[in-house]
Amino acid sequence: MTKSVEIVQNILDSNDRIAAGNKEIFNAHQIFAINMMASPGAGKTSFILRTIEKLPKGIRLGVIEGDTAPVTIDSDKVVAAGMPAVQINTGGNCHLDAVMLEQGIKALPLEDLDLVIVENVGNLICPAAFKLGTHINILVASIPEGDDKPYKYPAIYRGVDVLIINKIDLLPYIDFRMDYFKAGVEMLNPDLRTFVVSCKTGEGMDAWVSWLAAQVNAVKNK
Amino acid sequence: MTKSVEIVQNILDSNDRIAAGNKEIFNAHQIFAINMMASPGAGKTSFILRTIEKLPKGIRLGVIEGDTAPVTIDSDKVVAAGMPAVQINTGGNCHLDAVMLEQGIKALPLEDLDLVIVENVGNLICPAAFKLGTHINILVASIPEGDDKPYKYPAIYRGVDVLIINKIDLLPYIDFRMDYFKAGVEMLNPDLRTFVVSCKTGEGMDAWVSWLAAQVNAVKNK
Repeated sequence: MTKSVEIVQNILDSNDRIAAGNKEIFNAHQIFAINMMASPGAGKTSFILRTIEKLPKGIRLGVIEGDTAPVTIDSDKVVAAGMPAVQINTGGNCHLDAVMLEQGIKALPLEDLDLVIVENVGNLICPAAFKLGTHINILVASIPEGDDKPYKYPAIYRGVDVLIINKIDLLPYIDFRMDYFKAGVEMLNPDLRTFVVSCKTGEGMDAWVSWLAAQVNAVKNK
Repeated sequence: MTKSVEIVQNILDSNDRIAAGNKEIFNAHQIFAINMMASPGAGKTSFILRTIEKLPKGIRLGVIEGDTAPVTIDSDKVVAAGMPAVQINTGGNCHLDAVMLEQGIKALPLEDLDLVIVENVGNLICPAAFKLGTHINILVASIPEGDDKPYKYPAIYRGVDVLIINKIDLLPYIDFRMDYFKAGVEMLNPDLRTFVVSCKTGEGMDAWVSWLAAQVNAVKNK
């Protein structure tokens, strides 16, 4: 094993320890936590906003927004929708790690929350390597990105628990072979739970929110 | 300056030295070279294929495809379009660097070429930090990614010489404020040369190829 590989391994090991601590914090507060990853512009923030609209009244959501630049465009939208949000500026870095998330968690009103969604930096590669301590990883894919993405970015498709296929309203205008896309996903992550949605029209959001609410309530009633 | 910053600086310095060597190779062969960056699914490969269709007969193009996985989907398409292509598999890495490009260049028939396009890994963050030794950097943005991308990914918009705004055919179906997008670009990179295109319909490609051919011929006739 070379020195550089050892260093990378050490970084990942200490990240995993802090991630485990983050998960303990979530569990202690009976909060269900999600790490949401996607390409830039796949619609992560729109998906969170649609989820807020549809969430049952009893479920209180907090959002942590990872951004490479000090812009609060996304967190401002979440706050405007009535939910607490924290922005983590990675300072140009290409992913969130467990240490950054630990800071974000501390800035949220955990006592008041049932659900935390972490919106990772828009990137299909680097975020997949860093555990944050959430209960599940979600990938938001979108129709305009093209049907070959599972084949080209296998690591992220392999490491997620839920797949959201967004912008289904654009399907009539784009050459997207759903069978080819799904065959690629199936090869990497058989039986991956998938929701097909449009954040523009709201299509498919009820099924997602109903599944999500069941997960949140299971943790809440433990 | 901390130790970790020094290490990063050393890596970038040695990358820049190798990049300078790559540029010398291009210049020695009177080849105009482009580093093309974009988000996953912005349409880099489609843009290269449309460029091949429109290129004047006398200009011979070679393509270097950067991929995080050992899939030759993109390079196969370029070869099918009649141009030599080389695939660089980064082994999960999130960007090309000058050393990888050096290997790619060696695998191309440089004596026969006037133009090389390097298709970087689909990522709006990491590729911006690594010079490759090309003459210009191009960013392919696309309408479905949303109008806030310059604000969220400023580093890459700041570091490019040409901006391609692709998938303009989808404008009627998407809430994309062109003025807001362009104001963000203008703030970061005033007077950035911009071409608005659709790789689906071919709209805007003539203006791009005409500008490109002039650059190639200027280098060729030096």
